[in-house]
Amino acid sequence: MKYTALIMAGGRGERFWPKSRQSMPKQFLSLTDDGKSMIQLTVERILPLVDMEDIFIVTNQDYRDMVHQQLPGVPEGNILCEPVGKNTAPCIGLGAVHIARKYGDAVMAVLPSDHMITYSSIFLNTLRDACAAAEQEGKLMTIGIAPDSPETGYGYIKFRPDQAAGRAFSVDRFVEKPDLETAKAYVASEQYLWNSGMFIWKASTILQALERYLPDIYGGLCRIRGAVGTELEQQVLEREFRAFQPESIDYGVMEKADNIYVLTGAFGWDDVGSWPAVSRIKKTNEYGNVVEGNVVTVDTKNTIIQGEGRLIAAVGLRNLIVVDTEDALLICSEDSAGEIRKVLENLRICNRTEYL
Amino acid sequence: MKYTALIMAGGRGERFWPKSRQSMPKQFLSLTDDGKSMIQLTVERILPLVDMEDIFIVTNQDYRDMVHQQLPGVPEGNILCEPVGKNTAPCIGLGAVHIARKYGDAVMAVLPSDHMITYSSIFLNTLRDACAAAEQEGKLMTIGIAPDSPETGYGYIKFRPDQAAGRAFSVDRFVEKPDLETAKAYVASEQYLWNSGMFIWKASTILQALERYLPDIYGGLCRIRGAVGTELEQQVLEREFRAFQPESIDYGVMEKADNIYVLTGAFGWDDVGSWPAVSRIKKTNEYGNVVEGNVVTVDTKNTIIQGEGRLIAAVGLRNLIVVDTEDALLICSEDSAGEIRKVLENLRICNRTEYL
Repeated sequence: MKYTALIMAGGRGERFWPKSRQSMPKQFLSLTDDGKSMIQLTVERILPLVDMEDIFIVTNQDYRDMVHQQLPGVPEGNILCEPVGKNTAPCIGLGAVHIARKYGDAVMAVLPSDHMITYSSIFLNTLRDACAAAEQEGKLMTIGIAPDSPETGYGYIKFRPDQAAGRAFSVDRFVEKPDLETAKAYVASEQYLWNSGMFIWKASTILQALERYLPDIYGGLCRIRGAVGTELEQQVLEREFRAFQPESIDYGVMEKADNIYVLTGAFGWDDVGSWPAVSRIKKTNEYGNVVEGNVVTVDTKNTIIQGEGRLIAAVGLRNLIVVDTEDALLICSEDSAGEIRKVLENLRICNRTEYL
Repeated sequence: MKYTALIMAGGRGERFWPKSRQSMPKQFLSLTDDGKSMIQLTVERILPLVDMEDIFIVTNQDYRDMVHQQLPGVPEGNILCEPVGKNTAPCIGLGAVHIARKYGDAVMAVLPSDHMITYSSIFLNTLRDACAAAEQEGKLMTIGIAPDSPETGYGYIKFRPDQAAGRAFSVDRFVEKPDLETAKAYVASEQYLWNSGMFIWKASTILQALERYLPDIYGGLCRIRGAVGTELEQQVLEREFRAFQPESIDYGVMEKADNIYVLTGAFGWDDVGSWPAVSRIKKTNEYGNVVEGNVVTVDTKNTIIQGEGRLIAAVGLRNLIVVDTEDALLICSEDSAGEIRKVLENLRICNRTEYL
């Protein structure tokens, strides 16, 4: 069976402000030392398994040109644009509709566009097994990451250690982001994995699951499918998407479905959720600093400085994040990275949209 | 007797980088909320006591135009330019030569150009008393500040509490910047004042003291005096200044002379020695921040942010100094303000003089 990929690239990525903006979200930024954007790395990584013409990108209409520019090899017809973001269930459903229409049926690997993976060969090996398993009727495959700490920023997947099917384990349930005590208990139990947000299934399988668990969305998708290729396509797409209730695939399907299996990945994974993650994925110098641009440091440690042309002098700093762009500068303590959204709220309230 | 003032304005003010540059040192910057520069405030403050045409400025040749621009009321002939800085003794000597030549003799109030004084009327009252006392033959008057903490960044003046002459006390000795333990002992003794760097004497008195304690400099000053008004003036000035050994008036004269008296000032004094001082002299908001420019703060306290046009977002900061200019940005922890000079050293070594 044909292997395809659906790469989700509609996110706004506010947590990397001021480098990320509404016009330039995280998936289109380079956060690594090689200069390639997150989405370019995501595509490059899977090419040994999925042909370029079988890769689909779901994104927002605003980013169509950016996707085409960064990924000129992806056929233009494979860039699927949501009129409005309604979380992952409608997004994945739209992809499944197009894949089912084009191929009859196919395995689809649903992948985030903005995560880091260190060991591509191990990842591919895992993904290949997941695709093979997904060919079986009705199987919903996922990839879970063995935790190295009790993270509270991730959802978790509880698996059944005594029910293995090849390399995969049967999934007991999906759980949302826990508090710290719960996360510690999860890790101690040795039965919980981080939910990587990667799913592998046949288009027919996920469409059946949507029909069962999210019938309203499924109905809308059917109407969209009926209009694809007609002059009404855009109009129907707009109407149905605006009518959808926002719904995540995790909550809407995975927390309800059975026949879910998880493969554990050990390929170095990071969701690069906010600026402090950059010190994990970029080279740090002997003082623990990640420094780019025109920078002079004096007695400065564990600090991320992302400069552009202007001289930045850092003196006596610890655990700070400094991001300098032409029109906006962020200075943030590492522990406060979660508060960057408050800056954006403030800008929004004051209608200073030029900075968003 | 005529009262004149000699305002010393040759300093480079590296400690306010990147706002202060070689081309724009601290005395020409506004560090207060009223928008006036330090030297403008210094002149304005003494006008009730000293006429504008009797105010002399000693500065570096590079700053002649800046002085004239900021102080258009000061006669151009009163702007005295050192060919090269040789510390305060030659600087004050040059001023005394010009004042003695113009007035025969006159009281001269020697004042730094870059200190803050909060209560001008009290300062003037003190200065008036000092000028009156300085008319007496051979008296070297100074102004000392009663310490409110054991500062290690100032020199101290030890006075004789039992030898008062009117409001003034006889000075026992001048001492250089102490270590913390010594400074604590000074304050506990109730016999030491901060050396404000303000001196009041007749031109004839200081020239006699220079003749006695710094005869080489005195000799050079005599040759300069002989050339003033001739076509050789600039040539002789250059030659003599280049030949001078650098010498401070404190070390070269005040630590050796007797007949020194100190008046204690209680007018709110700050030498504004480095960026942290700005939070003492500018308005702070309810979080202890001094914020100027296009700034959004979130959970930020006791931080100085001096912005210009660009947006600065400060998130989760404590005790930081952020100074943004068009071509250079400084981010410095309050405790490390003394290390800013290391940035300048680095820039000098790398020959990046455009930032100095």
